Amino acid sequence: MPKTMLAVVKPEAAPGAEIREVNIPSYGRTDVLVKVKVASICGTDLHIYEWDQWAQRRIHPPLIPGHEFCGEVVAFGDEVTSVKEGDFVSAEMHVACGKCLQCRTGEAHICQNVKIIGVDTNGAFAEYVVIPESNIWKLDPAIPQEYASILDPLGNAVHTVLAGEIAAKTVAVTGCGPIGLFSIAVARAVGATTIFAIEVNEHRRKLATKMNADYALDPSKDDVRAIVAEKTGGLGVDVILEMAGQPTPSASPSTSSAAADASRCSASPRSRSRSISPRTSSSKASPFKASTAAACTRPGTR
Amino acid sequence: MPKTMLAVVKPEAAPGAEIREVNIPSYGRTDVLVKVKVASICGTDLHIYEWDQWAQRRIHPPLIPGHEFCGEVVAFGDEVTSVKEGDFVSAEMHVACGKCLQCRTGEAHICQNVKIIGVDTNGAFAEYVVIPESNIWKLDPAIPQEYASILDPLGNAVHTVLAGEIAAKTVAVTGCGPIGLFSIAVARAVGATTIFAIEVNEHRRKLATKMNADYALDPSKDDVRAIVAEKTGGLGVDVILEMAGQPTPSASPSTSSAAADASRCSASPRSRSRSISPRTSSSKASPFKASTAAACTRPGTR
Amino acid sequence: MPKTMLAVVKPEAAPGAEIREVNIPSYGRTDVLVKVKVASICGTDLHIYEWDQWAQRRIHPPLIPGHEFCGEVVAFGDEVTSVKEGDFVSAEMHVACGKCLQCRTGEAHICQNVKIIGVDTNGAFAEYVVIPESNIWKLDPAIPQEYASILDPLGNAVHTVLAGEIAAKTVAVTGCGPIGLFSIAVARAVGATTIFAIEVNEHRRKLATKMNADYALDPSKDDVRAIVAEKTGGLGVDVILEMAGQPTPSASPSTSSAAADASRCSASPRSRSRSISPRTSSSKASPFKASTAAACTRPGTR
Amino acid sequence: MPKTMLAVVKPEAAPGAEIREVNIPSYGRTDVLVKVKVASICGTDLHIYEWDQWAQRRIHPPLIPGHEFCGEVVAFGDEVTSVKEGDFVSAEMHVACGKCLQCRTGEAHICQNVKIIGVDTNGAFAEYVVIPESNIWKLDPAIPQEYASILDPLGNAVHTVLAGEIAAKTVAVTGCGPIGLFSIAVARAVGATTIFAIEVNEHRRKLATKMNADYALDPSKDDVRAIVAEKTGGLGVDVILEMAGQPTPSASPSTSSAAADASRCSASPRSRSRSISPRTSSSKASPFKASTAAACTRPGTR
Repeated sequence: MPKTMLAVVKPEAAPGAEIREVNIPSYGRTDVLVKVKVASICGTDLHIYEWDQWAQRRIHPPLIPGHEFCGEVVAFGDEVTSVKEGDFVSAEMHVACGKCLQCRTGEAHICQNVKIIGVDTNGAFAEYVVIPESNIWKLDPAIPQEYASILDPLGNAVHTVLAGEIAAKTVAVTGCGPIGLFSIAVARAVGATTIFAIEVNEHRRKLATKMNADYALDPSKDDVRAIVAEKTGGLGVDVILEMAGQPTPSASPSTSSAAADASRCSASPRSRSRSISPRTSSSKASPFKASTAAACTRPGTR
Repeated sequence: MPKTMLAVVKPEAAPGAEIREVNIPSYGRTDVLVKVKVASICGTDLHIYEWDQWAQRRIHPPLIPGHEFCGEVVAFGDEVTSVKEGDFVSAEMHVACGKCLQCRTGEAHICQNVKIIGVDTNGAFAEYVVIPESNIWKLDPAIPQEYASILDPLGNAVHTVLAGEIAAKTVAVTGCGPIGLFSIAVARAVGATTIFAIEVNEHRRKLATKMNADYALDPSKDDVRAIVAEKTGGLGVDVILEMAGQPTPSASPSTSSAAADASRCSASPRSRSRSISPRTSSSKASPFKASTAAACTRPGTR
Repeated sequence: MPKTMLAVVKPEAAPGAEIREVNIPSYGRTDVLVKVKVASICGTDLHIYEWDQWAQRRIHPPLIPGHEFCGEVVAFGDEVTSVKEGDFVSAEMHVACGKCLQCRTGEAHICQNVKIIGVDTNGAFAEYVVIPESNIWKLDPAIPQEYASILDPLGNAVHTVLAGEIAAKTVAVTGCGPIGLFSIAVARAVGATTIFAIEVNEHRRKLATKMNADYALDPSKDDVRAIVAEKTGGLGVDVILEMAGQPTPSASPSTSSAAADASRCSASPRSRSRSISPRTSSSKASPFKASTAAACTRPGTR
Repeated sequence: MPKTMLAVVKPEAAPGAEIREVNIPSYGRTDVLVKVKVASICGTDLHIYEWDQWAQRRIHPPLIPGHEFCGEVVAFGDEVTSVKEGDFVSAEMHVACGKCLQCRTGEAHICQNVKIIGVDTNGAFAEYVVIPESNIWKLDPAIPQEYASILDPLGNAVHTVLAGEIAAKTVAVTGCGPIGLFSIAVARAVGATTIFAIEVNEHRRKLATKMNADYALDPSKDDVRAIVAEKTGGLGVDVILEMAGQPTPSASPSTSSAAADASRCSASPRSRSRSISPRTSSSKASPFKASTAAACTRPGTR
């Protein structure tokens, strides 16, 4: 076992990052040391790199970013019982405190004191990363590594889609960044009927079609409201999955006008219409990476 | 049985109304004829009287308004089986079509073709009113008539409060018009813990206290956010009941700034915070009079 | 339009039935007259034919049975607005009273006074059947008629499967009569993961495999508990769909021991295990034909 | 700080227990040492004392039992942040593993590897007890100590009553041991309407009345079914809380016939009837002490 490793480091409170040789992190009695195989770049990482306002408020350099990854267990603390050397794993990067009211009452995904590995503490853009045992998720080695590294945004889509009834429902997805695209696939897999993808970017609309959306509409040209009404017998959709997130230079205002259009679509009498976004969906499952939901729809992450 | 009766009539598309002698309405085989004992004035009735924009779009005179009332059964059609002469009754005034997708699937409260008695058809500001048997609610004669005439706005409060978890929850009610005030009483009756009433009008704050709100705050003077945070151990409230509705001359902008304040209060990590308004709550029970929710908070209905 | 039609008639309180020429039924102002294209035989119909104890208590001859069918609209009453001549339709055969507490509160599927067409009133084993407009379901003409005639038991499966979380869950189906088999297909379509079919009858196990069950187990030979535990990593299944119904000569006791086995499988720590049967699932959608759930798993209906 | 303390010890695998002087337990970095003020005797403790079959299978002496208590914080480990010396506290005695699928997905109350303090590890029948910080619940010092020591069975009642809709519902409680009695008070506090207590023991029926049950019925004499039907307008109750647990010498068979009677009461058409027992209710809140639910209704715990 070497003593040092290469890591992407955000060295100081300014734009940019560096690749440096640093010490391999030490791990505690309940921690797992993972050798990183593949890491993915989230919009959050771009915020950190570019040192925008969000990053200036949240990030305290020096920091190794990176919170989407997969790897292999190489070592672990004395109290770890559920993994063994060589296990193929990914991780829930939100570390809940376990003490606050939310943690005590089955709502750890909204822990008051959550720490995000790769945001608040050193992350996965390095050869090794330390993860608490409770946050390790063992994976089937049959899953390709590049897929295993993006379970985080996929989880956002899964939790959003499953936050309410979806089987046999008609669905509009507004915004087809990575999470929006994932949500099309997830909705399809769990029995949604007609799926409308609403997105201004042509490349993304093509991807939406590839993900099996029934209709990929361009709100800058198509009369989204009329088309949705026509294809749903005048009822509008049952479920709106708002995946456009914060206005960004390339997506706004047309995407948000798309969202507005879609919202109007739901001004049908069907009460079961609901607008869910990753930011507000409350998963009972692993803590939810709300902060990256909008970010992941940035052009740069395409 | 007389042939004619007195009624408040909206004779034409203009402000005002008249008391006229009109024919007692005929009833069908599945209808109940009720002698009105007490009728209450809803904000909707003020819209109709004043002939504002909403009224101009929705109301087709001549019309007998009135949809909050109680009375006594005096006659009924051949197929009516569940009431008898002399029964003390009120009524659900939303008449669902029974044919649309919503009606067929247990969601009649959002019927696509709902007709409201007193809005779309002749109502209860008259000596007699015709109600379909399915919409009659039999009442205990022990209920005072003036209470029995306002079950409609009380129902709005009941359905809003019970639309999610409320027992042992902290609650903020933003806007203390009639429905807001009712919601305080309902929340209290079903085990809410601390209840914050947020309202600019002093008279209404006093009523809120009378309804057993723990704190009646004036958002134009009090630091609502700080007080709620202090009294909830920094957690914010679990439930926000948005009862301020549409901005109205007297209530806005201070009430809506109160609502904004309250919303910020919920920007705590407690996901169970939810904002419910009568307009969006989806009751499984009797169809829901969404259109009057905001209206009922108008100063004139105090 | 002819005056008479052929119908299967249960003429008197005794086993058997006859084909007779009878008058085409008259229809009311809110009714639809449907020319029957295909009708299916439910276990309930066998009870009626055989005149068993259930039938003796429930059925009042003379009666035209039959409650699973599809057909074509040929005429309708004055007040009917949602269908036109030639429409391809099936029907919800539970006619709710619209007056009881359940009907008034979105629970019409457990109406206190429900009447079942084909059980309590004349049904679809005839050339023509009368259906209230509210109970007509319009179908896509692309659906084959033999499929369109069995939407009733399929609905039982749909409502049972969707009565709780199912996406990404492991599922055991105990009893693979028609509804059990349908439930395998439905669970598959809405994203269930591993599906265990548990059934003593070899023919039905083969059908279960055809419906895409992952494992079709014979509780009279296989160690169901051990196999389920092994295939679920010791967790047991998340969802048990109890489709074996009442013990019947051929299915019991082995099937019920299968169910018992399966129940034991759920004695895992996973609280989300639930046992749902058509008899107890409470659908918000169309009234639910509980009485036939068990019946439909009778050998004779295979 | 002394080195030793008095404790009730179950020294060996046989009936009985002893008071012994033992070492004050050491505590880890995440633990809290609590000086016990009041401890309560649960039915589980009687099982342990009497060394019945359940105890023989589950308990590994030597053991200090006791899992219902309150006390004062006297010391804590380095990593403890949420309590201070002198805090008045009780504790959730189910220690979840934090690693299993249930713990990772918000279902820690059904942790696969749960350890119960006082059952699996040394408990509160001693001058001092060690509790993990995550399981400490801080209490208002205004709560009397004898009340603060029985939050565990009260929690059973709270979680059972709140496991479904209860406001404005009619309720039958079958079995009025401590948890049954608590459930009457809880149901009353959260807006239940008519509450029927069903219990053979006269003393307990009197307590049920004191807890504000509307009717305290003796199933060995009263016609429970008829009375419930009469008082509910023929509808039966909406909610059955099954609190009789396992048959015990004094309660069975009459109590279970009461339960059967009550169950029949729910054979009304109201689907919302549900039977909930502490054993099966799945709380999202703190882990649930199912094992004591039935035990607590034993005569000896009265």
